[in-house]
Amino acid sequence: MSKFQLLYGFHALTSRLRHHPKSIHALYVDNGRQDPRVREFVALAQEVGVQPRSVDGDRLDRMAGTRRHQGVVAEVSAIHQALDLDQLVEAAGKDLLLLALDGIQDPHNLGACLRVADALGVHAVIAPKDRAVALSSTVAKVASGAADTVPYLTVTNLVRTLRDLQDHGVWVVGTDDQATEDISQSPADQPMVWVLGAEGAGLRRLTQETCDQRVRIPMMGTVESLNVSVAAGICLYETRRRRPAIS
Amino acid sequence: MSKFQLLYGFHALTSRLRHHPKSIHALYVDNGRQDPRVREFVALAQEVGVQPRSVDGDRLDRMAGTRRHQGVVAEVSAIHQALDLDQLVEAAGKDLLLLALDGIQDPHNLGACLRVADALGVHAVIAPKDRAVALSSTVAKVASGAADTVPYLTVTNLVRTLRDLQDHGVWVVGTDDQATEDISQSPADQPMVWVLGAEGAGLRRLTQETCDQRVRIPMMGTVESLNVSVAAGICLYETRRRRPAIS
Repeated sequence: MSKFQLLYGFHALTSRLRHHPKSIHALYVDNGRQDPRVREFVALAQEVGVQPRSVDGDRLDRMAGTRRHQGVVAEVSAIHQALDLDQLVEAAGKDLLLLALDGIQDPHNLGACLRVADALGVHAVIAPKDRAVALSSTVAKVASGAADTVPYLTVTNLVRTLRDLQDHGVWVVGTDDQATEDISQSPADQPMVWVLGAEGAGLRRLTQETCDQRVRIPMMGTVESLNVSVAAGICLYETRRRRPAIS
Repeated sequence: MSKFQLLYGFHALTSRLRHHPKSIHALYVDNGRQDPRVREFVALAQEVGVQPRSVDGDRLDRMAGTRRHQGVVAEVSAIHQALDLDQLVEAAGKDLLLLALDGIQDPHNLGACLRVADALGVHAVIAPKDRAVALSSTVAKVASGAADTVPYLTVTNLVRTLRDLQDHGVWVVGTDDQATEDISQSPADQPMVWVLGAEGAGLRRLTQETCDQRVRIPMMGTVESLNVSVAAGICLYETRRRRPAIS
């Protein structure tokens, strides 16, 4: 195994160039692409001090193990993000907004959740270590750069972490399609964590019992559940719309 | 080409069994699966008069052209849904809620949009014929059954259709990340259609100009856009939460 990770796709790599250019060990660009998007990308790379190497598209396919790299692939080192939840909770104060994922096994779903978490100003995404998805190239590609900007914390025991958060005054809200209250009845004026489970399965029993409140997303049609990233988008939006904008 | 379409996955097939059992020409179930989910599925099929045939998983892989069929595959005939938009507009009255997709080319995205449209009580999803995605097996699988329940209308000219809707008193709201108003400033108390474009590209110019109002989804992070199904979920939820529940 190389000590570097692979990262590909314009969104993921543009974000990496902007936020952590020093973490990029090597950057490869498809020599068959001369379009404005590639030119702009190369200009950005050079601006932040990264010199792209021009290579064949076939080689990029082999490196990335997929054709979905959009002609840009990089070897990068892992970014060490501030992983101290206590510090995060203290720093964010009343504005704290977290997303906890209980049992999301699919890298596309994790990537999509990181992307919507970033868009809606979530401070960190939390998942239990044993059932969590690793931050792979697929996750980073789907996350469109958010894997570099939203801290992703894997914890040994999600229930214990949620209880710790409660001890710090954080309100724990879980989604549950059997709940009597709906998501608009969640509080917006205090630090909080949304807890979402996998589609169909929902939250584990102990996770569910730890929540201060369980609420449902109003469902009007015939489908039984929403994709977890769509559900996360709706829940986080519901909190954000009732909070004053962050300056 | 067979005159039948292939459909696979538990959600899509359960919905088809419940809503249109007569459209199922043949139903195949993996003989290697004996779990409760399959037994429940077979019981439902028999209850609605469809007799499943037990076959090898390999054969299902070949039929579906993918392994993501969950052990259940069917040959079905197309369902003819009520496609008259005028009738739909009249029947729904003030409660009308439509979703128009301008330039969504990816079947996963279309399936995900149909799913969230169904969940949030959308009356129909509209897309222009020339740039629209056909309702394939992939779309139906991702839509989790919603492809059978939410009418999907492809129209020759989206702008003309939006103008027709305006003539019938329907408010046309497009999303635009440059807009000054945000989605909470859209009206909820009149018939309306949300118009969403592809990620990144957004709405085509003429589509944009046809909108009565353009609004943006509040974005707080570093990612430039949301997945279109997540954006649709947030917009439709914003309308639904301000409308009295449908009885």
